[in-house]
Amino acid sequence: MTMTANELQQYLQEIFPQFGYRIVSAGDNAAVLEQGTDTSHLRPGGTVSGPTLMAIADAAMYIAILAQIGKVALAVTTNLNINFYRKPTPGKLRAEARILKLGQRLAVGDVLLFCDGEKESVAHVAITYSIPPRQA
Amino acid sequence: MTMTANELQQYLQEIFPQFGYRIVSAGDNAAVLEQGTDTSHLRPGGTVSGPTLMAIADAAMYIAILAQIGKVALAVTTNLNINFYRKPTPGKLRAEARILKLGQRLAVGDVLLFCDGEKESVAHVAITYSIPPRQA
Amino acid sequence: MTMTANELQQYLQEIFPQFGYRIVSAGDNAAVLEQGTDTSHLRPGGTVSGPTLMAIADAAMYIAILAQIGKVALAVTTNLNINFYRKPTPGKLRAEARILKLGQRLAVGDVLLFCDGEKESVAHVAITYSIPPRQA
Amino acid sequence: MTMTANELQQYLQEIFPQFGYRIVSAGDNAAVLEQGTDTSHLRPGGTVSGPTLMAIADAAMYIAILAQIGKVALAVTTNLNINFYRKPTPGKLRAEARILKLGQRLAVGDVLLFCDGEKESVAHVAITYSIPPRQA
Repeated sequence: MTMTANELQQYLQEIFPQFGYRIVSAGDNAAVLEQGTDTSHLRPGGTVSGPTLMAIADAAMYIAILAQIGKVALAVTTNLNINFYRKPTPGKLRAEARILKLGQRLAVGDVLLFCDGEKESVAHVAITYSIPPRQA
Repeated sequence: MTMTANELQQYLQEIFPQFGYRIVSAGDNAAVLEQGTDTSHLRPGGTVSGPTLMAIADAAMYIAILAQIGKVALAVTTNLNINFYRKPTPGKLRAEARILKLGQRLAVGDVLLFCDGEKESVAHVAITYSIPPRQA
Repeated sequence: MTMTANELQQYLQEIFPQFGYRIVSAGDNAAVLEQGTDTSHLRPGGTVSGPTLMAIADAAMYIAILAQIGKVALAVTTNLNINFYRKPTPGKLRAEARILKLGQRLAVGDVLLFCDGEKESVAHVAITYSIPPRQA
Repeated sequence: MTMTANELQQYLQEIFPQFGYRIVSAGDNAAVLEQGTDTSHLRPGGTVSGPTLMAIADAAMYIAILAQIGKVALAVTTNLNINFYRKPTPGKLRAEARILKLGQRLAVGDVLLFCDGEKESVAHVAITYSIPPRQA
């Protein structure tokens, strides 16, 4: 039922051709995603835009959940809370997601976002997914 | 110091050429923005993607703030909390922002998001902006 | 199935003897609660404590939900996001809750908090409740 | 300038006599607090109340900040986002806070909450504190 990073990468590109992330790892209630950023991801001042950060965080949590429960294309985000606290510099963006609770109806976790080669995260994201009923 | 909807529309397109929103109204601690959605804004299942909703909400709050305090290109979002609670259908998207507090350092408010012609909102967003020191 | 402010006040004091709020109004997807504050609600500096604000906000949303769907003692908060943006002064505290979505499984809404006689709110709270399955 | 767990315990009980937490550890951008719960902390159904969880989380982040920057009684919470995802059982409550960013004006971090002897957390809390200007 669970899926590996490679299987997930293929599956995501099938169901969602615009999927622009590299799945670095997935499993054990966690996932790591990376993305190159270009000018379309920047906002005035040359920093990576907020929606770019929210999008990769949301995707990383989704991948962490799929890695645990398999293909559930219909899991949907119900709540996302993001704290931005450093200027994200252009370059490679990295999202590290962990699941804190995976229940029957809800999955809850958080994501730390990092810019290329930096040790300190630029934003913290708490995310809740609603997951459709599964069969035993 | 305050700016009208038209002045803001021009200013935003100058400093941020990708700005893809129509400023319907701005002023009195509020702003309304609209956006057409196309396939680039959709996710599997045909609903408008979460980052699309977050982006217009963030922009609407930014416009509401600029309408009060004038050109402050460097105001940045520090916290955004979004609750998604209905499937957003493709078509025109509308964001209604109100400022709840506009202080020296922080602006706090919320945004309701609506899909084309529907009465009930599809998501609620609470947003905090950090604003740089202003001159008297 | 719906309940009036008076019925709710009685019901709450029955199931939860410590319930210390006055239900000013309830119904139409909204509720207003008031509470006197004493020294046990204050923190150093003489302001009303954060947990006091969160508690009345949470209660106001609960009452707004009960007013719509009747006695559902088991509804539980799953997410609460609060922005504090003014110093709450001691005295009467007032919470105005509105429901933005009341679904089969989740109720989502927000609450504005006011201090005695002031026009501008001191905090904004977004709240999600999980509600147990109901019978038709 | 930094303070140890013991110094913090004394300081807190001085400035805030009702402080009811045991500071297990503090330092290195983190803090752990514990609290016994009694019937005043319970809600109908026998679970620990939400405000009890929010209060200890808020205190744990405050202690983590004080351990880094010393006595700053006036640091105030500006945003708190809590996801409740397991029923908290009565007994000892434990809060583990970590600081993700400690800037000149804002401190951002998160807190995991645990019930007596359990491995999995019952709630996740993201918190932002505003900190007053410090001297060099």
